[in-house]
Amino acid sequence: MSNVNTTFTYVGIRVKDLQESIDFYTNLLGMTLVKRHTIAETGGEIVEVQSGDAGFILELNHYGAASPYNTDYVVGGGLDHLAFAVDDLDAALREAARRGHPCTLEVTLARSRWTYIEDPNGIWIEPVTR
Amino acid sequence: MSNVNTTFTYVGIRVKDLQESIDFYTNLLGMTLVKRHTIAETGGEIVEVQSGDAGFILELNHYGAASPYNTDYVVGGGLDHLAFAVDDLDAALREAARRGHPCTLEVTLARSRWTYIEDPNGIWIEPVTR
Repeated sequence: MSNVNTTFTYVGIRVKDLQESIDFYTNLLGMTLVKRHTIAETGGEIVEVQSGDAGFILELNHYGAASPYNTDYVVGGGLDHLAFAVDDLDAALREAARRGHPCTLEVTLARSRWTYIEDPNGIWIEPVTR
Repeated sequence: MSNVNTTFTYVGIRVKDLQESIDFYTNLLGMTLVKRHTIAETGGEIVEVQSGDAGFILELNHYGAASPYNTDYVVGGGLDHLAFAVDDLDAALREAARRGHPCTLEVTLARSRWTYIEDPNGIWIEPVTR
């Protein structure tokens, strides 16, 4: 065994419009903005959001027009989806739709029901019943 | 306030070869395989890996040739990177290189040093010092 001892610490997504993504993850999904800083060398702005004050970190990476990392934005299959536990799936879907994020796919299987909305970047978000 | 009360629960990535990705995340990054199941209706196989037995879940989604979700695999900018805390950054990079995952980008800023490797799908992985 030569494993490296690691702890999965955060997931970083790239966002097209920082404020729209902050609004989505805080106002709709109820996460907390815990950190915001800019990186002069890369032209990047970074915002960290979290569920409560001890949850896993979602890092929002924004590269402005002057940044060399401001390439075409493609939502690839590499990131399949981000999942958020909710108390009431139908209530969550109604609130998301009211805020302009309607359910875009619903899959009903023998033992489960999967529903998806999209974040402002087109990233698939799956609310799952706790 | 009409936030939905949520908990960020897991991130799902799509993988090209399930066993190669399991090997990468368990043998190299030391995560634990905690769940494995197939979804007959979608032709999907799902493996959940975790840091220790209480960490955040990374879900590996594989769609075989017969699955309607087996579309071209594109690593988009939507997922920027996944971060893993390590005790010794240089040791982690050496072990990754030994296993065929060399450092592909190193950025040295005034106050920090960022390094990246790629997982078997081309997803950027950032080891960060604890």
